[in-house]
Order: sequence, then C-alpha cells, then structure tokens
Amino acid sequence: MPLLNANALNALIEALRRLPGVGVKSASRMAFHLLQHDRQGAQLLAQALQQAATQVRHCSLCHTFTEDEVCATCRDPQRDRSKLCVVETPADQAAVERTAAFKGLYFVLMGKLSPLDGIGPKDIGLSKLFDRATDGVVQEVILATNFTAEGEATAHVIAEALKARGLKVTRLARGVPAGSELEYVDLGTIAHALVDRR
Amino acid sequence: MPLLNANALNALIEALRRLPGVGVKSASRMAFHLLQHDRQGAQLLAQALQQAATQVRHCSLCHTFTEDEVCATCRDPQRDRSKLCVVETPADQAAVERTAAFKGLYFVLMGKLSPLDGIGPKDIGLSKLFDRATDGVVQEVILATNFTAEGEATAHVIAEALKARGLKVTRLARGVPAGSELEYVDLGTIAHALVDRR
Ligand SMILES: [Zn+2]
Ligand SMILES: [Zn+2]
Repeated sequence: MPLLNANALNALIEALRRLPGVGVKSASRMAFHLLQHDRQGAQLLAQALQQAATQVRHCSLCHTFTEDEVCATCRDPQRDRSKLCVVETPADQAAVERTAAFKGLYFVLMGKLSPLDGIGPKDIGLSKLFDRATDGVVQEVILATNFTAEGEATAHVIAEALKARGLKVTRLARGVPAGSELEYVDLGTIAHALVDRR
Repeated sequence: MPLLNANALNALIEALRRLPGVGVKSASRMAFHLLQHDRQGAQLLAQALQQAATQVRHCSLCHTFTEDEVCATCRDPQRDRSKLCVVETPADQAAVERTAAFKGLYFVLMGKLSPLDGIGPKDIGLSKLFDRATDGVVQEVILATNFTAEGEATAHVIAEALKARGLKVTRLARGVPAGSELEYVDLGTIAHALVDRR
C-alpha cells in the first residue's frame, strides 16, 4: 500500500520495513505519523540511527555494545573478575544486573546456537568466549543463557568446552518462580525444581 | 530496560519509541537487530527519515504528501477536474485509486474531526477544502471519509458547508460488502443497505 505521489515517503516506508516486526501497514502508519505530527522526531531518530550505526561497537572483553574499546562494566574496579556470567543478549545482561545479586563480569554472546537457522559456534563468537574465560583470572563461568531449547543447547556446548579447559562451570538454577503457587506452575518447571532441589 | 554501556544505543532506543505503537521492548529489539545484523539498514533508514522530513510537503491543491508544489495526480491532464473525492488519509486515497473506478481529483484531509480529541475544523484544514471545492470547476464533491463515527461526523460537517455553497455533495454508498452472506453481515450494515437500496 504505497502512499501516492511522494518518492521520499515511499522510500521511508520501505526503509521502516527493515525494522523487525514492521510490515507495510505499520510502516505506512509510522511514516504518516512522523510526517504529519512529528517531523522533529523523524530528524531525531535519523540522528540517533546515524550515531549508533557509526559509534556503537563491541566491548573487546565482554562483546556487549559500547562506544569504548572496553565497556564501563568491564572497566569497573569494584567487580569480581573471577566470575564470568554468560548471557545471550544485552537485554539479558540488564535483567541480571537489575537483580543486584551478581558482582562479577559478563560475556554477552549476542545470540545463541541455532543449528536449524544455521547459527553455529563461529556465528556467536564462542572462541572469543573461550579465550576470555581462560585468561587465568576467571575461576567460575556462570551460564545464564535462556531456558529455551536453543539456550540450553548453547549452555551445554559452552559447558563441555570450558570444563575440558579445566574451568568451574555452573548454570542458573531452574525452579519455581518466586511468589507462584504450585497449582499454577507448569509441570516441566516443577519437575526441574524437584531435580534441582537443595 | 535500557541496554547497558552505550549512550548512543540508549539514545536510539529512546528515539525509536517516538514511532507509534513502539514500546521500550520493541524499541530495544529493533535497536539490537539493526546494530547486530543490519547497520546498512540503520544508515538507510536514517537517510530516508532525513530526506522525507525535509523534502515531503503538502500538495497545494489536494493537501496530500508530495515533493512538488502540485502532486502528480493533481497535475494529470487525464483526470476529470469536475469531481473531487474527499478522503481522510493518503492510504485511503490509495485504496480508492486501486479500485480504478474514480477518475476525478482528490482532497486529502490528513485527519478527521474528533471533538473528543480536540481536533476541530481548523486542525484538518476544512477552509482549504472549501476554497478548493468552490474554484468554479468542481461540480461534485464525493465524501469518502471512513464509515466510523468520526468519519461520518466529518462527512456531515463538510456536506452541510458545501451544500450551503451550492455544490452537489454525495457520499459513498453504505451496504453489504461484495461476496458476503447476509447471515454473517452485522445488523447495522444490513439496515443501512435497506435504507440505501436502489
Ligand atoms: Zn565489556
Ligand atoms: Zn495534489
């Protein structure tokens, strides 16, 4: 459904469709909104995209997004450098940070193993993680990949490789979420909580 | 849920939230996708936003988006200049165009009357429509605003004003959609189809 009579507008709609989850209808709605009601927002978004695309890089230690050679978390002298928590994405790292229960460092995979989608160890930089974890300072690697099939498979591959290199490897506990009633918890979760009982 | 350690990234997430229907979770997902998998797309979108925000204007005749003083449709010598079809948005204009059943010109309101949201006649440029419709060439104004409460109210206000100026004003017929079985058509639609029977 291209809007008529404006090439710059049709080009904008096409470009908005590169965003994940945005089809031609939402792209048209977004373009219409920006041009009719928020041209300042359009300019601001253009600048933000330009800056992020040129300035954001990967931390040379933990691989997360940063504008520096080494990110602020990895530079923080208060952090326990003997513990390394492996997560899939910066959003997962943010979730762990919000708990304030972990004071070590991170490694952000920026993805997960997904053989069906052709995403193998090289695509998520596992060799970089292996180098990072075997720096002689890291004593324990905590696997905090998601508890999905792909996250579990990723954790398994990493655990095997790092144990073979003599490192202590742990996994976040599976279990019943805090505050939930057993009656409403799915069976698989209860089964895991039984196996991981302590 | 700001991603950590990158101001340019947090700024991008904030800017993406200005898009309609985009909350902090989708904005994070979009930013992550662009930076991890499609930096070229980010640059392209930045350029498209910049160009659209600076180049797209309103056609001086029909008010739709265009990069020219007068849009290609209004300039088209094949069009019947005695008929003016009033629509709410460029997307609605595109829908009418796709029927290939109308060869006249358009006026695009770029909105609709919505007293509850404080959108009155001045906000959607009705005086501009009244000037356009009374140029002496236009003989019939066809109201193709949506068949919603607001679209109907908008059509009503325009119809009254233009009839007072001596113009012929018509409205798209309400009725049963082509291909539908009466059993599954809502009562209001059937009632309208009875009233508008021919
Ligand atoms: Zn880092
Ligand atoms: Zn025009």
